[in-house]
Amino acid sequence: MSSPGIEKIRGRWLETDSMAGVGIDPNIQRIPAEIWEQVGGTDYISEGITLFNQGVIDATADFAVDFKVNSNYFQGELGRKALQNTFDYLKLEHPSVLRVCDGKFGDVQHTAEEIAEEIFGKLDADAVVLNPYLGFDGIGAFTKWSDKLVILCVNTSNPSASEIQDLQLETGQKLWQHVLQKSMGEWNDNGNIIPILSATHPENLEGIREIAGETPILLAGVGTQGGSLEKSVPLCLDSEGYGIMISASRSIIYPEVRAGETSQDASRRSVIELRDAINQAKIG
Amino acid sequence: MSSPGIEKIRGRWLETDSMAGVGIDPNIQRIPAEIWEQVGGTDYISEGITLFNQGVIDATADFAVDFKVNSNYFQGELGRKALQNTFDYLKLEHPSVLRVCDGKFGDVQHTAEEIAEEIFGKLDADAVVLNPYLGFDGIGAFTKWSDKLVILCVNTSNPSASEIQDLQLETGQKLWQHVLQKSMGEWNDNGNIIPILSATHPENLEGIREIAGETPILLAGVGTQGGSLEKSVPLCLDSEGYGIMISASRSIIYPEVRAGETSQDASRRSVIELRDAINQAKIG
Repeated sequence: MSSPGIEKIRGRWLETDSMAGVGIDPNIQRIPAEIWEQVGGTDYISEGITLFNQGVIDATADFAVDFKVNSNYFQGELGRKALQNTFDYLKLEHPSVLRVCDGKFGDVQHTAEEIAEEIFGKLDADAVVLNPYLGFDGIGAFTKWSDKLVILCVNTSNPSASEIQDLQLETGQKLWQHVLQKSMGEWNDNGNIIPILSATHPENLEGIREIAGETPILLAGVGTQGGSLEKSVPLCLDSEGYGIMISASRSIIYPEVRAGETSQDASRRSVIELRDAINQAKIG
Repeated sequence: MSSPGIEKIRGRWLETDSMAGVGIDPNIQRIPAEIWEQVGGTDYISEGITLFNQGVIDATADFAVDFKVNSNYFQGELGRKALQNTFDYLKLEHPSVLRVCDGKFGDVQHTAEEIAEEIFGKLDADAVVLNPYLGFDGIGAFTKWSDKLVILCVNTSNPSASEIQDLQLETGQKLWQHVLQKSMGEWNDNGNIIPILSATHPENLEGIREIAGETPILLAGVGTQGGSLEKSVPLCLDSEGYGIMISASRSIIYPEVRAGETSQDASRRSVIELRDAINQAKIG
């Protein structure tokens, strides 16, 4: 029996036939004028962000494995109010979609306990994104919430990730491979860690299932960062033909709106296109 | 000419003859009853945290190089309100003390830009604590604020830090040594990165000034984590006999109160004791 978080992901794959996720990274400058009009003006920051997110969420939930909400886009008092509102809304309206808080946290144990209490307790996120640089102290404070999920930055897809993560260890492994091994092994007593891996160098993904077993993988860097779905997806499938979550954010939350579409129509079309592209890559 | 942040640290060393810092990590459960009485009860979370912090700050500022405020202790809407209030208070009442926001952030570039805008822009912190695992993308978004300071988690002092940071690279360096070299070299175009190093293995600090030059070092792990002041401080002094910031948090903000002392008296005594212990270690 997998952890409840992993079961939720599996349920979602089967229910939606989708491995697409939606990244909720709202930038106040990019929230459309009609949202501000509806909430009474740009002074209503918290209400504006919340309403914007709700629109994207409702438009895309049918095709989303997860909503990955990056708390670093919810700054200040009003941002944090919108963050709570957004998680409350997800739980109420779309409870079967995995709720991820992507803070990339990495702090010492007693601080990590405070963060976990907020993210898993108050926000009631299903999963959190963490950074491994400080070792297990700050990870164990989250994994001990055994019904929750830890998504670990093992190999990220940002351009400079290789500066650190690709460093060659004296053992012959790259640093990220070592972190992957720990996250699938000694750190994973509760079976509730899943890795972030990058699609930007598909050769890195060869043999990945021998290490990761049936664990879901958050595959990053597809699309604008240059990762190829065709090359990376087949390498990451699990034995059921799923096994992956691939999030897009800006292309879904600020979609190119075509004639006759509302912005929400375009967000919905965009997540469907992502789902279909992933599924197409499965069959090659 | 050093960066303004480094000049602020140097000014503080000379002005106070202190290399002690105060970590502001307020835990709501540990805020004393008299604070809650003053703000009207425990419902007034933001006011309670703010007033508690102000008391500690006023009691200790005369002997503090820096206030290192960990944003991870300021969760939710009300926590973030208290975070803003605390930074506003520091700027207004104690402008010569370095204001550090210790979030240990490490995100991709476009997200890092949002965080920097909040921490350096809205909070007007002088310095931020960052995590290097994602490489320079998320660091450069902060270092480009050339009048601000980046404090990088190079070698942290938490028990599990060695799991990752002490990994031996094929070059013969440990990972943290490689990160130190980058942070003092190619990442440091604006001369505004300073490293966090651990005092828990003083042998690691031998020869550190050959790599770090005159850069201030945030020395972690002294005290409860077992780092020896006597062994580590002499290794880290700069050519002026300063060069270090050593923060304590819990021993200062929740001090043991002796007969005849108020809690604020005890906080003040605690930071003076830390200052004196560091200065004693200087002369051996």
